[in-house]
Amino acid sequence: MARLVMKFGGTSVADLDRIRNVARHVKREVDAGHQVAVVVSAMAGVTNTLVGYTKEAAALHDAREYDAVVASGEQVTSGLLAIVLQDMGVEARSWQGWQIPIHTNEAHGAARIERIEGETVIERLERGQVAVVAGFQGLAPDNRIATLGRGGSDTSAVALAAAIHADRCDIYTDVDGVYTTDPRIVPKAQRLERVSFEEMLEMASLGAKVLQVRSVEMAMVHGVRTFVRSSFDDPEAPQAGNGDLPKGTLICDEDEIVEQEVVTGIAFSKDEAQISIRNVADKPGVASNVFVPLAEANINVDMIVQNISPDGKTTDITFTVPQTDYDRARAVLESKASEIGYQTLEGTTDVVKVSVIGMGMRSHAGVAADCFRGLAEKGINIRAITTSEIKISVLIDSAYTELAVRTLHSLYGLDG
Amino acid sequence: MARLVMKFGGTSVADLDRIRNVARHVKREVDAGHQVAVVVSAMAGVTNTLVGYTKEAAALHDAREYDAVVASGEQVTSGLLAIVLQDMGVEARSWQGWQIPIHTNEAHGAARIERIEGETVIERLERGQVAVVAGFQGLAPDNRIATLGRGGSDTSAVALAAAIHADRCDIYTDVDGVYTTDPRIVPKAQRLERVSFEEMLEMASLGAKVLQVRSVEMAMVHGVRTFVRSSFDDPEAPQAGNGDLPKGTLICDEDEIVEQEVVTGIAFSKDEAQISIRNVADKPGVASNVFVPLAEANINVDMIVQNISPDGKTTDITFTVPQTDYDRARAVLESKASEIGYQTLEGTTDVVKVSVIGMGMRSHAGVAADCFRGLAEKGINIRAITTSEIKISVLIDSAYTELAVRTLHSLYGLDG
Repeated sequence: MARLVMKFGGTSVADLDRIRNVARHVKREVDAGHQVAVVVSAMAGVTNTLVGYTKEAAALHDAREYDAVVASGEQVTSGLLAIVLQDMGVEARSWQGWQIPIHTNEAHGAARIERIEGETVIERLERGQVAVVAGFQGLAPDNRIATLGRGGSDTSAVALAAAIHADRCDIYTDVDGVYTTDPRIVPKAQRLERVSFEEMLEMASLGAKVLQVRSVEMAMVHGVRTFVRSSFDDPEAPQAGNGDLPKGTLICDEDEIVEQEVVTGIAFSKDEAQISIRNVADKPGVASNVFVPLAEANINVDMIVQNISPDGKTTDITFTVPQTDYDRARAVLESKASEIGYQTLEGTTDVVKVSVIGMGMRSHAGVAADCFRGLAEKGINIRAITTSEIKISVLIDSAYTELAVRTLHSLYGLDG
Repeated sequence: MARLVMKFGGTSVADLDRIRNVARHVKREVDAGHQVAVVVSAMAGVTNTLVGYTKEAAALHDAREYDAVVASGEQVTSGLLAIVLQDMGVEARSWQGWQIPIHTNEAHGAARIERIEGETVIERLERGQVAVVAGFQGLAPDNRIATLGRGGSDTSAVALAAAIHADRCDIYTDVDGVYTTDPRIVPKAQRLERVSFEEMLEMASLGAKVLQVRSVEMAMVHGVRTFVRSSFDDPEAPQAGNGDLPKGTLICDEDEIVEQEVVTGIAFSKDEAQISIRNVADKPGVASNVFVPLAEANINVDMIVQNISPDGKTTDITFTVPQTDYDRARAVLESKASEIGYQTLEGTTDVVKVSVIGMGMRSHAGVAADCFRGLAEKGINIRAITTSEIKISVLIDSAYTELAVRTLHSLYGLDG
């Protein structure tokens, strides 16, 4: 007997037939003797419709009212799934965020979960009742509904799993797990049986869109074993028993991963824009003159490269920003041209960030060197580099995206 | 300065343009210095879609889950109207039933409002904030959402008006008031300036579908002056000032009605079916043998006619039931044929109930006689008659509906 959280996204609950399919997945786990809490998103398209209404109502609108409108989508799905489960003979009830309650902070529209009162849900689970929880929402300190921001249902699921001390949080999605890279680019990409929280965090934040970044952070902080699997698998198919997991990817503590590969995956993000400031004075305060105005404009700067000045007088600074902020970032810097004192401002949105990720690289030398040599052999120019303990990222021309990803995937032995 | 509740139904909030029109009505009252609480229905069609989902999920379903699903429609409208009002510079916030709270009984799906904690809303109104309240719903004793049954937003509005001690409850609808009869049948039908609670109750329950019956009952019990007017009137048109009301119908205590007409209106209901049981023994217990089984089958019996038996041995009993229950009622009676001991069971759905309504008839003799003579002169046969203090109802062949209504409308001097 285990206690499970099962999370189903919008495409998995897009209509009543799909909701029935979800119910069969739930019934399978209940029949196996498990205690089950389900977290559901809004039916596919509903959230977009509701968001569209709020925009049509007013371009700038009260986030508390946005929350009241948009949170209704998950409310509907939770009620419908409870009805379908009951119809299948599974005892179930729906729970809205304010009923549990799931307490959030006051940041309406993009709230963070602060605390979940899990006691009542646990009591019901122990009585054999399935809890169907509306995802993506909670109760703010003003006693009004708060939503967690797009994709927040993943976070709802992981937070609930932590609060009710679940043995596992199963994220049912439209893919059957996390891959070594995007299979659309590298057909030989392999599904990972297990991946550590840290690695998944790098992959999620780099554009592997299987799981929301915040949900992975939360899973890591609370040690919630999170299992990604497909909602399109046959719900009645025989499942692996006794601790063996069905087809999917387990995101877990690195201690649970027996054979740690040096490199786990190759991620890439096309949402990058590069800005270079040439011939700025090489003196204290210059970097601050550049990046403080950007921070004040709420522009998130990612890679930053500043080389040792060859002549000790002027230098170049290169950095990346999200593509959506590119024009705004240039405008901010041009308005501060005299304070910064640069000669030219250049930039392009025609770049991609490719990253090599792996816990094993902490204890293996030469991983970065292999990457640079491999790309050089294919004639791919590296515009900028950043590294962390478990990640090497390079910024390259976007035309080379596929070539670079395939080259690195093969280089680190990830091809099947 | 007055405190107003303004209620808008589904067609009045069918899309964002209509919601903006509603907001202009609200702004007009706010600009006039009034404190305003608004009660909204779901956007036209939304409730039907949601109800359809619950039926598709399971033919028989948990009413608590139905409530969670269906109540989301009003939640959306309340948030959108608050956004639009704010965008017009009117301070506003949405209130869900569970936030006020509007306490209901435990009858999920058709709950009754038991108590509204109006204090917080009053406090906000006094600060100049418009309260936009989701209609049709409240919080049941189990801490879950309860809906009031179809058309319940009228009841929400009147109950809220009572709880916050509003001076008036304005029901904005798609007609500009209550008429002496259906203008589609009698083009000369007149809009009533004022009508008493008691008269309106008879009209509402007889099929004049302007207001939900329960809302009129509640208005009568709590003395809530209720004003029916059109939401399609120009919101910026000059309004009558100083206690004079704009175009519409005020439903109020009879003391407020200076010149009480003998007859106020002619109502009719096509939702009737007639059943006659012939040659039953004229002895104690027969009526009970007929009507107890019907009551147990939850069939609502309306008119009942039993004449004095001519021979003292057998008699006939005629009564009406709602058309939707006709087949079921016949089946119930046929299954009890031996206990009841009747000779034949006859019936028809081809009947209509026409009613003459007026407070004044309490003090005027001959109103009923006029009715019977008027119909007789047109060759209309009366199948059954029931009367109350302020109402005379006759059951006739439905083919004569229009003729009967026009004849009575003219007879009692209601033609313009």
